[in-house]
Amino acid sequence: MLENIKSPRDIKELNDSEINLLRDELREKIIDTVSKNGGHLASNLGMVDTTVALHRVFNSPEDTIIFDVGHQCYAHKLLTGRYDRFDTLRTFGGLSGFTSRGESEHDALTAGHSGSALPAALGIARANVLDGKDSYVVCVIGDGSFTNGMVYETLNNCNDEKLKLIIVLNDNEMSISQNVGGMARYFTRLRNSKKYFKLKKAVQAFFQKIPGVGKKLVRGAYKSKEFIKHLLLHTNMFENMGLYYLGPADGNDERKMEQLLEEAKTKDKVTLIHMITLKGKGYEPAEKQPDMYHFAGSLKAEESTDKKSSETFSSVFADTVCELSEKDPRIVAVTAAMDKGTGLSRFKEKYPDRFFDVGIAEECAVTFAGGLAIGGKLPICALYSTFFQRAYDQLLEDIALQNVHAVIAIDRAGLVPGDGVTHQGVFDVPLLSTVPGITLYSPETFEETRFTLKRAVHGEGLCVVRYPKGKEEVFDRSNFKEIGEGVFSDGDLGAEIVILSYARTVKAAYEAKKKLSEKYKTSCVKIVRLLPLDKEAVMEACRNARLVCIVEESMRHGGMGEQIASLLSQNGILCDTLIMAVDDFLPHGEIPELSALCNFTCDNIVESIEKRLHNAGI
Amino acid sequence: MLENIKSPRDIKELNDSEINLLRDELREKIIDTVSKNGGHLASNLGMVDTTVALHRVFNSPEDTIIFDVGHQCYAHKLLTGRYDRFDTLRTFGGLSGFTSRGESEHDALTAGHSGSALPAALGIARANVLDGKDSYVVCVIGDGSFTNGMVYETLNNCNDEKLKLIIVLNDNEMSISQNVGGMARYFTRLRNSKKYFKLKKAVQAFFQKIPGVGKKLVRGAYKSKEFIKHLLLHTNMFENMGLYYLGPADGNDERKMEQLLEEAKTKDKVTLIHMITLKGKGYEPAEKQPDMYHFAGSLKAEESTDKKSSETFSSVFADTVCELSEKDPRIVAVTAAMDKGTGLSRFKEKYPDRFFDVGIAEECAVTFAGGLAIGGKLPICALYSTFFQRAYDQLLEDIALQNVHAVIAIDRAGLVPGDGVTHQGVFDVPLLSTVPGITLYSPETFEETRFTLKRAVHGEGLCVVRYPKGKEEVFDRSNFKEIGEGVFSDGDLGAEIVILSYARTVKAAYEAKKKLSEKYKTSCVKIVRLLPLDKEAVMEACRNARLVCIVEESMRHGGMGEQIASLLSQNGILCDTLIMAVDDFLPHGEIPELSALCNFTCDNIVESIEKRLHNAGI
Repeated sequence: MLENIKSPRDIKELNDSEINLLRDELREKIIDTVSKNGGHLASNLGMVDTTVALHRVFNSPEDTIIFDVGHQCYAHKLLTGRYDRFDTLRTFGGLSGFTSRGESEHDALTAGHSGSALPAALGIARANVLDGKDSYVVCVIGDGSFTNGMVYETLNNCNDEKLKLIIVLNDNEMSISQNVGGMARYFTRLRNSKKYFKLKKAVQAFFQKIPGVGKKLVRGAYKSKEFIKHLLLHTNMFENMGLYYLGPADGNDERKMEQLLEEAKTKDKVTLIHMITLKGKGYEPAEKQPDMYHFAGSLKAEESTDKKSSETFSSVFADTVCELSEKDPRIVAVTAAMDKGTGLSRFKEKYPDRFFDVGIAEECAVTFAGGLAIGGKLPICALYSTFFQRAYDQLLEDIALQNVHAVIAIDRAGLVPGDGVTHQGVFDVPLLSTVPGITLYSPETFEETRFTLKRAVHGEGLCVVRYPKGKEEVFDRSNFKEIGEGVFSDGDLGAEIVILSYARTVKAAYEAKKKLSEKYKTSCVKIVRLLPLDKEAVMEACRNARLVCIVEESMRHGGMGEQIASLLSQNGILCDTLIMAVDDFLPHGEIPELSALCNFTCDNIVESIEKRLHNAGI
Repeated sequence: MLENIKSPRDIKELNDSEINLLRDELREKIIDTVSKNGGHLASNLGMVDTTVALHRVFNSPEDTIIFDVGHQCYAHKLLTGRYDRFDTLRTFGGLSGFTSRGESEHDALTAGHSGSALPAALGIARANVLDGKDSYVVCVIGDGSFTNGMVYETLNNCNDEKLKLIIVLNDNEMSISQNVGGMARYFTRLRNSKKYFKLKKAVQAFFQKIPGVGKKLVRGAYKSKEFIKHLLLHTNMFENMGLYYLGPADGNDERKMEQLLEEAKTKDKVTLIHMITLKGKGYEPAEKQPDMYHFAGSLKAEESTDKKSSETFSSVFADTVCELSEKDPRIVAVTAAMDKGTGLSRFKEKYPDRFFDVGIAEECAVTFAGGLAIGGKLPICALYSTFFQRAYDQLLEDIALQNVHAVIAIDRAGLVPGDGVTHQGVFDVPLLSTVPGITLYSPETFEETRFTLKRAVHGEGLCVVRYPKGKEEVFDRSNFKEIGEGVFSDGDLGAEIVILSYARTVKAAYEAKKKLSEKYKTSCVKIVRLLPLDKEAVMEACRNARLVCIVEESMRHGGMGEQIASLLSQNGILCDTLIMAVDDFLPHGEIPELSALCNFTCDNIVESIEKRLHNAGI
């Protein structure tokens, strides 16, 4: 029946058994698609039932349903007219793995980062008040996001009875990594009323009898009559902040959720519904090991993986940190809910006392790392490039300015496959370039990653190592000779065309050089230490150039291209330049697709240089 | 006696009357110095008593006493060996108005931004645990900072009994602007036990009898015996997060604070002491109008102010917003605890329903503004340049990416007088330059501010107007003619030397041009719309140049200088370039001092250009 759902209106009139069938079909479709295309599995399965309830109780898009991060929106997509395109999920040109304004009027937010949905929802709700609209805004937000500061900043602004805002706290007892800190413990206390605990056991026993995937009609055989509303003597912290609190309730009980959502509509306060969902619900392997199925790669991709070469930049980073930490007891590691993603879970196992996961809280992570350094430790803080954007001020003011030694590892730097527009790592080089005194390495091989990380650990001040997602490129680098600190050239210094590059684009740049060498005296320069840039070496390499081309997986303004081009003209090296960089937001896709889109392939580079030479009349 | 206090050790043995004398002398010195040099007055007066208590109970620097923002550290400075230099407060080369690592071993953090002290303190406390040290870390943090998300992110990581961390919540019932939101109401409830309320009235009555400034011995004539510990049936939200809660207590009662700090040392949890201080305590005008005395300009400066020309960029901004809002009901205004600083308090008075102050929460402010835009409003969000650094990701992802129309006003852009290293506005241009699709204006006159703000309001997508603190420069601009969109030139397009500039440096650039014109054909180009840059106009102005000089109050990398220099060589305009920009953190000082330090004066520019011409052999 799912294929006939063209809009949320189509599910309003379904009867109980139809609803249950719908839930099954949604799960089946999600499992089927994720097994082919990869994607977030466990959280999406957990959200199926509440998503159905949401679209039955509210009228999207007049009412706004907004998902934090957006990685749990697959059922929402399937119910809002995107069933036909769902097979294209996370593929280049296809549906995004997150909510996306361009895709549907039912997606109010192009999402991806944690904690943003709530302030955005508040904004929409506030606009509705000003316009005298009766519409509701419902914001679904995971318990993991309650480790993020923006959530509190926004809760602090919610105590206005005019706001028609309902917050659905999706408590699946685990965010991406295991949930950390006081809030997680607090949620546990909220959850652990006797009744609820008993109920949950019954539910689990029930589901253990239903094996397999996409099987028939899975019905909640229980009624969640009266959950304990307020455990803590009629007050809890959400009420302290001026909200109305409902729950905890079973978020996999569609009927119950409908009831609660209807109840929330009657309150004259911003209402928080605390619901508990089973992550991976309906898919046994995911239920048992939800952390393994938080994000599932496509089966296709898994099969093609050569088991011998399972190394990635992240694993090389993590192994090197472990190795360095054996010798240097000052080293401590910090992450923001990405212990697995960054590879630091290995460090965590080995040195649990020296490992700190602060939650989805990059700002806190970086300033905390600064404090550790002030206290005499050597912190290594690993963040994804896109999430580092949130901690720019903290990096600048709470580490660089403090004049302490700290290491920041920026994972997923450059183009990032799959996740798309909110997750591209093309902003970190310009941002980091503004930081006085920074040392910035951008290795393009595993060996360079090990080497530069060691340099960073033995260095001074703020040292950053950035590296891409995945594996190193394979090509023969034997021609490259170091001509300066962190600057390598494959040719002599008198070339008329010089192609400079760093990180993943070095391979294409080098191949382009080889092609162009048939016609022009060309050299390829690879930069590993971006900052401080060995200016003398770069200038030496470009001294006789007629055209200098810089290729980088970075935004144009503030990137190395502009830095190098202006370096040359500031030093009297007057030559044409060509900067091949990123100028716009980038969609989701695999690396080859994104590289082609950005003109980063060998052929793109050759063609662009020849065109430029032609135009310049060289 | 204060002049004899060379270190905190010197106050350990004082008796009661000596302590009271010390407190009086501290207040006297603070009032005296602030009246000469300007500075934060009310908060510093309020913190005198607790600061004395802190330095008697703890042993700095073995124990770390760390102040959030650092604007309440004057008594701390006076007690830690800086009495002799205190007259230099906030002057160029003198003591900073905030804590500063370079100044004293007693300043663990170079502070300035809200919410950073707590994660930094946690880091230091964590380092102490790892090192098996017995030292304490005490973090003093105002109630205003409890509107900031980093505080919660960190509280969430505090439930470890090994941590010797004490948090002193300095509740002065008002942050910079009036405190906002649920937390403020919650604090009010915590405060409003009957007993405490009664006590406070008695205190106020008592102090109303003691007029004037720096008068004799002001003693707390009351004992705050038993404050209600837990109002909310033995639980409050700090306890929910796993902390031990002490208070509320009178933070102006030095003896009581000593007792509580000693008590906190006995707890095996991170302890939060909730103390209430009277902002401006001991200085009647500041007690009565603490918001007026949050920050006091020097009397000297006040006197020299021409009353007729009280306009500033902030006031022009605010007036224009009010004017535009009259015609356009879509306009709403958002600020992050800076309604007075940004001038938006005028808007607030006029349109209370359309004004939103979210607290010291720039991240929330920007995403909330994005939500308002999604909801059909036209948000104008005003932030200081230095605080905008915290909301880069939100600006990028939650506004620019959403493809909605919103206006961001960046106040205090460029060099900022007085506050110093943590408050300079020299990072926003590089940061904003990375944002796809942005329109960025940098007006240098009041008239341009009005004009560009109107443009921004009538524009599309993300429009940003940045402007400096204070007043417009006075000089004759009649020679400037618009040669492109937001690009103005004072000369013909064939000049051999072109000086480009924007914002405050335009005056010096123009004067330099006039001097250089005696020897060389020179033109001065002023850019008002930085992004998208009218490239054709800029190239046209530079087409025959031998030297192009760009002067900007911005970090070098990613600034307009690098953008323009690389624009030229990418388009075959090959000429020498000279970029005069900022390369390092900048200290506190007045604008003329900072301008000279950065080589932004007319003479600096002339000299640099002539040197460059000489070196280039032009």
